[in-house]
Amino acid sequence: MNLFKKYIPILSWLPSYKKAALSGDLSAGLTVGVMLIPQGIAYAMIAGLPPIYGLYTAMTPQVIYAIFGTSRQLSVGPTAMDSLIVAAGITSIATVGSAGAENYIAAAIMLAFLMGLMQLAFGIFKLGFLVNFLSKPVISGFTSAAAIIIGLNQLKHIFGIEIPRSNQAHSLLYDTGIAINSTNLITLCLGIVTILTIIFLKKYLKKIPAALTVVILSILIVHFFHLDLYGVKIIGAIPTGLPSPAIPDFSQNYFKDLLPLALTLSLIAFMEAISQAKAIEDKHNDYKVDANQELIALGLGNIVGSIFKSYPSTGGFSRTAVNDQSGAKTGMSFIIAAALVALTLLFLTPLFYYLPKAVLGGIIIVAVMGLINIKYPVKLWKYNKDDLIMLLGTFAVTLTIGIKEGIIVGVTLSLGFLIFRSTRPHIAECARIEGTDYFKNVERFDNTKGRKDLLILRFDGQLYFANTNYFKEQLNDMIAKKGPALKLIILNAEAINHLDSSAVYMLDTTIKELCKKEIYFAVAGAIGPVRDIIFNSGLSDTIGKELMFAEVNKALECLDEDKAIDFERICKRIALQNNSNL
Amino acid sequence: MNLFKKYIPILSWLPSYKKAALSGDLSAGLTVGVMLIPQGIAYAMIAGLPPIYGLYTAMTPQVIYAIFGTSRQLSVGPTAMDSLIVAAGITSIATVGSAGAENYIAAAIMLAFLMGLMQLAFGIFKLGFLVNFLSKPVISGFTSAAAIIIGLNQLKHIFGIEIPRSNQAHSLLYDTGIAINSTNLITLCLGIVTILTIIFLKKYLKKIPAALTVVILSILIVHFFHLDLYGVKIIGAIPTGLPSPAIPDFSQNYFKDLLPLALTLSLIAFMEAISQAKAIEDKHNDYKVDANQELIALGLGNIVGSIFKSYPSTGGFSRTAVNDQSGAKTGMSFIIAAALVALTLLFLTPLFYYLPKAVLGGIIIVAVMGLINIKYPVKLWKYNKDDLIMLLGTFAVTLTIGIKEGIIVGVTLSLGFLIFRSTRPHIAECARIEGTDYFKNVERFDNTKGRKDLLILRFDGQLYFANTNYFKEQLNDMIAKKGPALKLIILNAEAINHLDSSAVYMLDTTIKELCKKEIYFAVAGAIGPVRDIIFNSGLSDTIGKELMFAEVNKALECLDEDKAIDFERICKRIALQNNSNL
Repeated sequence: MNLFKKYIPILSWLPSYKKAALSGDLSAGLTVGVMLIPQGIAYAMIAGLPPIYGLYTAMTPQVIYAIFGTSRQLSVGPTAMDSLIVAAGITSIATVGSAGAENYIAAAIMLAFLMGLMQLAFGIFKLGFLVNFLSKPVISGFTSAAAIIIGLNQLKHIFGIEIPRSNQAHSLLYDTGIAINSTNLITLCLGIVTILTIIFLKKYLKKIPAALTVVILSILIVHFFHLDLYGVKIIGAIPTGLPSPAIPDFSQNYFKDLLPLALTLSLIAFMEAISQAKAIEDKHNDYKVDANQELIALGLGNIVGSIFKSYPSTGGFSRTAVNDQSGAKTGMSFIIAAALVALTLLFLTPLFYYLPKAVLGGIIIVAVMGLINIKYPVKLWKYNKDDLIMLLGTFAVTLTIGIKEGIIVGVTLSLGFLIFRSTRPHIAECARIEGTDYFKNVERFDNTKGRKDLLILRFDGQLYFANTNYFKEQLNDMIAKKGPALKLIILNAEAINHLDSSAVYMLDTTIKELCKKEIYFAVAGAIGPVRDIIFNSGLSDTIGKELMFAEVNKALECLDEDKAIDFERICKRIALQNNSNL
Repeated sequence: MNLFKKYIPILSWLPSYKKAALSGDLSAGLTVGVMLIPQGIAYAMIAGLPPIYGLYTAMTPQVIYAIFGTSRQLSVGPTAMDSLIVAAGITSIATVGSAGAENYIAAAIMLAFLMGLMQLAFGIFKLGFLVNFLSKPVISGFTSAAAIIIGLNQLKHIFGIEIPRSNQAHSLLYDTGIAINSTNLITLCLGIVTILTIIFLKKYLKKIPAALTVVILSILIVHFFHLDLYGVKIIGAIPTGLPSPAIPDFSQNYFKDLLPLALTLSLIAFMEAISQAKAIEDKHNDYKVDANQELIALGLGNIVGSIFKSYPSTGGFSRTAVNDQSGAKTGMSFIIAAALVALTLLFLTPLFYYLPKAVLGGIIIVAVMGLINIKYPVKLWKYNKDDLIMLLGTFAVTLTIGIKEGIIVGVTLSLGFLIFRSTRPHIAECARIEGTDYFKNVERFDNTKGRKDLLILRFDGQLYFANTNYFKEQLNDMIAKKGPALKLIILNAEAINHLDSSAVYMLDTTIKELCKKEIYFAVAGAIGPVRDIIFNSGLSDTIGKELMFAEVNKALECLDEDKAIDFERICKRIALQNNSNL
């Protein structure tokens, strides 16, 4: 039973579903459902698909997620970022063929199927941790850039002009600049009024569903004043009825080309979903989000969704927040929202005939403006330049070259900094702060007492192949500075979290060389796993157990005359050891 | 003047050259020179080149190294490993063309020129640190595998059979097995006797130059008994005279194909040289090896060498050891050794006409046997399984797939382990060891005193984007285990060497959530650079300065009644903070 509950989380709440939860779920489900209708239509426009596909995507995946997902507030469906990636990726692949539009739709659905399959596999093989490699600066830079590209792609709808879709900011700006002479002024007014209205409603009348309001008002205005006859582009007829199930079409030759795109999308979509699911989980105490089960749920949502003509879906930022704030307690809210979308598909699609594209563009622009984060890079400028470089690098590449490339550059920079930092850890000479038992960096604390016969050295990081040379060089410099009076080196190993075999070898040879110069080497404060390595590798025989201490002040006592250690004996013992191959 | 000495290190010893150094340099130079002659011929055979090219390579590069090199014992010239890489790489590139042999030689010389250029560039741009990424296990696995491949490639000479050159162990064994029926028994005897004689001489008569002895004896035997008429293959005529200088031939179309090979070789050759130079430097106190200057010296050696018909050269293991043991004090020993090779080229090459290839094969096999290190993996099995996997992975791939591939797999595994390890650092609940001020892992020390109102947590590694989730999960588990009595969490940050912005954000949100549950979060023992990040990021405002301590036992006092901290005030302050975007 427990296993069933683990893999089919709906079993953990549906059998014991209480009426108390229903009022919250109903209110949240209806609110999100109402949001989903304009969002579905708008995001389909970002993806370059007919509006109906956005509604299809707003329905099936979240029902599947209600069954298999572990979060009880995450609202799964079409999202702006995924739609952008779909558009950016498929444009170059599927429109090259003969039957352009047909191919394009088939490719988008196939993409959902493939990414679902990958997410399912990642979940089964427990690869959810991979998403941890997307650091916050990379996600932030990527999201801001994607938001700008999505926004720029809407300019054509706001101005009522024709420019080719693109995922590069500079070409979008250039194309818009060229075509701006043919702006349709009525369209532009509609767009600007939409943007201002939504901003106003969101700020002062939060209870009113802003997007739906402007959608309804604009439909009425266009219909009443016949604005479509004055060049205002409308979305036109949307078919009525639920999608009939069909296995995605594998016969196309672009099948292979979609694989790298599906991989990118499966990870980015998962990253979007899991980061929100985790954030919302922290606010609730009644369930736990499981990253791998989330992958399975999102994957199944995309697979089953693709059979019902959905394009790629995942958890959406704004919808999830609204769902939570509206009181959603269980996955029942997803089912209610999906039912509302289904009702719309069955009966209400003709109402959207006169919906102007400029209004959709305005809705999208306001939605993505909130994703552009400027505060964060400004903060990073103050305290973490490495992270700022990661952020700006990801941002610049995503904005001007491409989505995949941005993510790749971001992850490469993150890991590059990680590795680079570990090759030159912070290294400090420590001394006792007078009157205390604290040993701190001599360069940070003035009132420390330096001794010429003693070098206390703290190395702040793992000691491993890529920094053993650095350690050796720094140590030699410090020894040279101390001069010939130096008798004892104490390595404060508290901050060393690992020793690899290259480091063990380096320490072994170093200690033996120092011993020839009558300088002794003690290790203080090594943590458990490092002590294990020191003993199991035999390095403890070279250091000598009498020179391994739990704390620096204990190590220091061996220089006091009354507790003196017989250094000569240690030296003889080390000399007796052959140069064993550590 | 100092700058001159830095870039032309010969200026730091030649002007003040003392007679006292000469006896050592002379003895060492002559000994190494005598070694270089059979080595040069044998290594040329490994590289698939006529013997004379090995002698050319044994001359020019080490003269250049004497001028520009910082090590005073490193013996530069042809090496077994480089020769193998030359053979493995060029076979597939240059013999495809029309004039096979001519092309092959030209390609080997061009390769020296290109790798020299790259080394020079790496040195000028101070990229010597790149070699730090070759960890000891990777070098060991690679060296052992290369030694086995070199050895297996000599079997054809020992058995007197014809098999194609290869750099894959399994195909060498297979081909040898097929051709073994046509073994020439006299050749086999010569080969086996050579191997046994060298082993005997090296063990019991160390003063005698083993390789030269078997070379001279075998030449006499073959000449006297006319063994060449009985199927024993001899190296035949070697041209007399010094190489005439010529600019390498850039007209060939394989020029581009050599670039990746040159890159691999430039780094591996540097790695061979620098590791020995550093090891020998440690024994002497009168000079310092500079990695970037070494790159410049080796690079110039290869460039100038290629003009004088050398193939790729670097520092050799055995020669360097012999040079040092024979008393080399300065680069003068290189110049003496080179002079001996020059004399040989001018007058003595006809003497090697009857030298049997089986004897060269035997010399090579004994030389490379010493490079196969079995002790090291056995030791790693005991104390470092990660490093063992790196070693075996590199070994297996180098042995069966290829040289470049082996290095790539090794470096990838090394960095992979580094990254993987950092995603799940050791994390421990600590408690005071009774009667002391030590706080150690509760699971390692029995006599510790657990308290339900207190959680002391030590995180052993940097806290960054790829492990913030792990930290959070572990923390939540520990909090759940403690139960509702928990009041204070103390993060022992001694072993945390870095906080990135993702970690700062995670800590900020975590502390705020905990505060809502009336659990307080103190940080103790943070090192300087981490304190800087905590303060500059504003995280200190969330933690509260009254909850940041220099040591764990100070933090503990705030739970004592008389020194109690006003937790309610802290909580209010945190609640007042808006959810700033850290």
